[in-house]
Amino acid sequence: MLTRVHRIPAVAPDDVAGIQALVTSGQLNVKGIVAILGKTEGNGCVNDFTRGFASATLTRMISDHTGEPLDAVEQRVALVMSGGTEGGLSPHWLVFEIVNSDGGPSDGSKSLAVGAAITRPFLPHEIGRAAQIDATADAVREAMERAKISSPDDVHYVQVKCPLLTKARVAEALAAGHTVATDDTLKSMAYSRGASALGVALALGEHQAMSEDAVCRDFSLFSRRASTSAGVELLENQILVIGNSAAWGGDLMIAHDVMADAIDTSALARVLGQLGIAATLPLGPDAQACVIAALAKAEPSRSGVIRGARHTMLDDSDISGTRHARAFVGGVLAGVLGTTTLFVSGGAEHQGPDGGGPLAIIARKAAVGAEKKLD
Amino acid sequence: MLTRVHRIPAVAPDDVAGIQALVTSGQLNVKGIVAILGKTEGNGCVNDFTRGFASATLTRMISDHTGEPLDAVEQRVALVMSGGTEGGLSPHWLVFEIVNSDGGPSDGSKSLAVGAAITRPFLPHEIGRAAQIDATADAVREAMERAKISSPDDVHYVQVKCPLLTKARVAEALAAGHTVATDDTLKSMAYSRGASALGVALALGEHQAMSEDAVCRDFSLFSRRASTSAGVELLENQILVIGNSAAWGGDLMIAHDVMADAIDTSALARVLGQLGIAATLPLGPDAQACVIAALAKAEPSRSGVIRGARHTMLDDSDISGTRHARAFVGGVLAGVLGTTTLFVSGGAEHQGPDGGGPLAIIARKAAVGAEKKLD
Amino acid sequence: MLTRVHRIPAVAPDDVAGIQALVTSGQLNVKGIVAILGKTEGNGCVNDFTRGFASATLTRMISDHTGEPLDAVEQRVALVMSGGTEGGLSPHWLVFEIVNSDGGPSDGSKSLAVGAAITRPFLPHEIGRAAQIDATADAVREAMERAKISSPDDVHYVQVKCPLLTKARVAEALAAGHTVATDDTLKSMAYSRGASALGVALALGEHQAMSEDAVCRDFSLFSRRASTSAGVELLENQILVIGNSAAWGGDLMIAHDVMADAIDTSALARVLGQLGIAATLPLGPDAQACVIAALAKAEPSRSGVIRGARHTMLDDSDISGTRHARAFVGGVLAGVLGTTTLFVSGGAEHQGPDGGGPLAIIARKAAVGAEKKLD
Amino acid sequence: MLTRVHRIPAVAPDDVAGIQALVTSGQLNVKGIVAILGKTEGNGCVNDFTRGFASATLTRMISDHTGEPLDAVEQRVALVMSGGTEGGLSPHWLVFEIVNSDGGPSDGSKSLAVGAAITRPFLPHEIGRAAQIDATADAVREAMERAKISSPDDVHYVQVKCPLLTKARVAEALAAGHTVATDDTLKSMAYSRGASALGVALALGEHQAMSEDAVCRDFSLFSRRASTSAGVELLENQILVIGNSAAWGGDLMIAHDVMADAIDTSALARVLGQLGIAATLPLGPDAQACVIAALAKAEPSRSGVIRGARHTMLDDSDISGTRHARAFVGGVLAGVLGTTTLFVSGGAEHQGPDGGGPLAIIARKAAVGAEKKLD
Repeated sequence: MLTRVHRIPAVAPDDVAGIQALVTSGQLNVKGIVAILGKTEGNGCVNDFTRGFASATLTRMISDHTGEPLDAVEQRVALVMSGGTEGGLSPHWLVFEIVNSDGGPSDGSKSLAVGAAITRPFLPHEIGRAAQIDATADAVREAMERAKISSPDDVHYVQVKCPLLTKARVAEALAAGHTVATDDTLKSMAYSRGASALGVALALGEHQAMSEDAVCRDFSLFSRRASTSAGVELLENQILVIGNSAAWGGDLMIAHDVMADAIDTSALARVLGQLGIAATLPLGPDAQACVIAALAKAEPSRSGVIRGARHTMLDDSDISGTRHARAFVGGVLAGVLGTTTLFVSGGAEHQGPDGGGPLAIIARKAAVGAEKKLD
Repeated sequence: MLTRVHRIPAVAPDDVAGIQALVTSGQLNVKGIVAILGKTEGNGCVNDFTRGFASATLTRMISDHTGEPLDAVEQRVALVMSGGTEGGLSPHWLVFEIVNSDGGPSDGSKSLAVGAAITRPFLPHEIGRAAQIDATADAVREAMERAKISSPDDVHYVQVKCPLLTKARVAEALAAGHTVATDDTLKSMAYSRGASALGVALALGEHQAMSEDAVCRDFSLFSRRASTSAGVELLENQILVIGNSAAWGGDLMIAHDVMADAIDTSALARVLGQLGIAATLPLGPDAQACVIAALAKAEPSRSGVIRGARHTMLDDSDISGTRHARAFVGGVLAGVLGTTTLFVSGGAEHQGPDGGGPLAIIARKAAVGAEKKLD
Repeated sequence: MLTRVHRIPAVAPDDVAGIQALVTSGQLNVKGIVAILGKTEGNGCVNDFTRGFASATLTRMISDHTGEPLDAVEQRVALVMSGGTEGGLSPHWLVFEIVNSDGGPSDGSKSLAVGAAITRPFLPHEIGRAAQIDATADAVREAMERAKISSPDDVHYVQVKCPLLTKARVAEALAAGHTVATDDTLKSMAYSRGASALGVALALGEHQAMSEDAVCRDFSLFSRRASTSAGVELLENQILVIGNSAAWGGDLMIAHDVMADAIDTSALARVLGQLGIAATLPLGPDAQACVIAALAKAEPSRSGVIRGARHTMLDDSDISGTRHARAFVGGVLAGVLGTTTLFVSGGAEHQGPDGGGPLAIIARKAAVGAEKKLD
Repeated sequence: MLTRVHRIPAVAPDDVAGIQALVTSGQLNVKGIVAILGKTEGNGCVNDFTRGFASATLTRMISDHTGEPLDAVEQRVALVMSGGTEGGLSPHWLVFEIVNSDGGPSDGSKSLAVGAAITRPFLPHEIGRAAQIDATADAVREAMERAKISSPDDVHYVQVKCPLLTKARVAEALAAGHTVATDDTLKSMAYSRGASALGVALALGEHQAMSEDAVCRDFSLFSRRASTSAGVELLENQILVIGNSAAWGGDLMIAHDVMADAIDTSALARVLGQLGIAATLPLGPDAQACVIAALAKAEPSRSGVIRGARHTMLDDSDISGTRHARAFVGGVLAGVLGTTTLFVSGGAEHQGPDGGGPLAIIARKAAVGAEKKLD
């Protein structure tokens, strides 16, 4: 098996023409699609309907091609829509396709591997709490198994799509005699993202047993590889594990590191280094062409400062802080990588340290000796 | 004479405590202040009153110290407030102080030189038109003379603060039987910035005679060194020329180049190179410490794309494109320079090519041989 | 024939559950639907994808029920989505259903009548110009005929959904050697709405022949009955004519007047009076129950004032003026009518005088003698 | 003594020209100014610097006229700036001036009376808590005494300007070993407004002893006469009590009631009735001329509905709910009163019921028998 990653521009949240063109030309087999990550041009916050519009359109398109019922598509394919293309970020789809081949390369080197899993649906009172942490950890382990990744060290990115609390769900929990983690719907997105990220940390051994009290409180606990995103359209956690495995073939691989703050390009340089790409300013054309996808989390630091200098992202009542952060971190990465087609998503609770976040890059094994660095 | 540049954080548009502390401690002589550039935390658009608030507070503070009447301060000191600290940008003041000394260094090397001038007040119908272009060019020449800079090649940055049209000013022009360049108040900022930039280009010989028809129409005409900013609080153009001159002493110098697009870090690398600073990713601590101020313009490309990838800045009806652009370009520069205290201002009409903009850096002459590069 | 109007709340742009419930219970025949007007909760400006999401969902729902192909549904049913439920406005659908009955009432009184028509798709360079004006006028006449309304005096509301220019459409026009009415995408919505409204005025004899130069320039020309709305998801104009006709039965009727400014409740009182409803403050419960739908246009006055007092809607660079206006006029009407489920749409170029706009109310013929007033 | 109320338009937050013109013409004695309420055109949220700009400008203007030091002016004159003129609301000043005269009218009728007081500065950890409630109640009683109002029934409006928490103030509290009511700066405005309103309720006997746990939790507790507004520019609570008193003369009086929800024009009708003004739709010209000032609070209902219909104000991540609410309630009132120069302020925690708020009107005693109704 090998994984292909298609990076396709979108001119609107329902623009799947680029995907369909690849299908028509035979470059993409719809049945092989295991995940689509999308950057859509909404505000990325509560009333961002571009995510739902994109998901509905993609689900319909896949169903039309494969004949699967809509709900079967939703179960089989991880659709992770991240709203917000602030600054110069460019709306696009990242389509992950598994292709059957004759197994991994004979030289034993590792290649890009993906695996998906899904938790049971959560009850409203479980969101942001231990039940979500533990079920997420189990699902991450299951997805690793499917990806034939045995060591957590070979996992470089775990995308989680998780539910949130609506007014109705809060009422349902209260009616059943439960409390909820928060009755603020916007905050529930943070709790769900946070618990999901801690579940990833647990599965990957980044932290050992942890209490649900830590969620959105003890930010010293975090995963270096989780990217979690909350959406109103689901009740379970959908997990996509991306790593490297000797059981897979292909010419792609992934590496990651953690940005310590919003402007930490040293982390970017380290990730590039792992991939055998020289971190020059900016990257040369060949190096740029090797980078297939960059996935990062962005958030305003709760400290209110970046390297001691005050930022105004959290005091701006006109623009949400997450929108500021995506625009800014998008610039940080684009300036080096030479492209604006970057998957920068917001809301990084327990995903990297305060104000920073995980950064993963998928690249072609172009550079001599790059495979060795991953062993 | 020598120029000192003080970079001072501000916690609010009227926070001049940091400046006053330097005065109290004797590190800054208020009478020597020739210009203050401020990044304030408004929206940088029509209804940004943080600029006026800052200007009023600074004017009052200087007057209180020197005993000058308020209008004398306004005439003597160029106060250029640029609203908008989107993304991680940090509100701050850049105070330019001239210190009398024994003249330039004996070795004939050039040092940072500044000069200011001011045009007559414009009538509403002149804004964005030939009258503004020509008067700006004259004032740039006058400011160069005051800065003892004879060659346009030694000018690296020209800051212009210019007026805009309000509903009332449009009505005044129409009542007097004139037409206006535009009756859209937001657009009038663009026209005023554009005409001012073309005035700079004219003075520096970047272009020869030009028609007012080019303003906001023929964007192939632009200055590589102008940075213009419109504000409701003035009717004239205030000009600040910054360059290098052998007539000045001190350990600072300035260099510039033009970013071809919003993510053009190769331009940044070239500017650093001119200053003798190695453009590593990110800069090392010593190099970071050498950079005293970075001044850049940001704008969404009218083409709608950055290196072929669509951006959504001009289609976003919730956030002004200039706000997106400042956040994004702020990230591009901060990721390399290692600081968010950057003077990134928006609205780059005729200041660099579409979607790009001038970039100037003031640095200490720390690197061996840096002076030679400027000859 | 008679017209039923169903006012149905929506909890999201793709929430058609309320419509489906009526279908299931037999209260609504999908095949009889001729138009759905929707207030969706986007920003109502360029990047409002809630309109497209709603339209796609409604089209699919109707197709699923009737077996018609998607494009047949689009041609048969006028779907007019108006984005923006600012202030307390409530997202909802207004479903217009035609029911076959034994013709109009024997007493010769007039009842609510509707008719739809659609223009050909416009080329980008035609938008905002004579081609759009003329084609709209033709389509209004065609829709009147279908509604069996012979006199323009019996037309009380003409809803037009019209296209806008995107960056891509502007480029297409320029590439074909054409100029465009404006290359500003937000402004193109105004031009398209304006030309469409003038087309309505032409068809209804409110004005005679007019030049395209008047569009968005000569605001003394306007329709008192047009409500036009621009959206990215179509290229043609969709027209819905609503009036009263003796050829129709049922217990509904419509009346209209023009608000002279944003706070003109005297116009509201006059419309209520035409419908036999006493304009008390607020309406009594019975009167409130008679009002089935209220349709109004809102816009910031270009004069910058309302009855001499300055407003800030056009100087606010954080919130679009159309969003301000919808919230405000929504309050004006809701305070009297006692409900927030109002179809207030923005962008009233050439629809009523500057800062005002058409207002139409559909009500039950509850009041004695109401029919006479309409003769 | 008698109170004059001057309603003066402002073209910018620092536009005091209209006030100065009255001073110059002898219609206003600066030394008699006890309070200025201002509607300024900021966002009314955390980063609204128009309030501070206005306050600084007004303080300076008064000082320039009277020779008082700036801090003496700040202590003597209550400056209550409320940011946000959304919808069609018009920026303006309401200047309250006390004029010495020969005491109240001989007929024993009551006239408009005002009194101001100020609390001590609060420490960050006291904001939103019992300390703020109790100190506010004490200051209200003190202000009543100064206004010569002995019965709480004669108090119709209590304006409170209160502080908020910034990131720095939160850090200060934490560093001192305290907890804070909330570390969310936007939410801190709600806590401060809520505790202040409960302090008013306590002083006026609307509620008896209450716990600080009720703040922003138990919304069944509220004042019917408090209007509280948070701003970054102060640390103490400034109180202005407005009522009617037989000890005062003049031709003005005030009345109030509570809007049960955002569209409750029956409350408006009742207030007008108390003032002897017939509540027609809209008011006739004479009635309009009698209304000198209208003061109201606006907020999105936490229930998410208005009379059963969903609103989207709390789910909109682009525009703050308080901005929506001001625009909307502004429309509700303006449609009846026939003017947009209304003091509608946002953030009505514990000020009236959920989604509603206090409404007070100051009017001339024009109507026959109006005085009697107030006895």
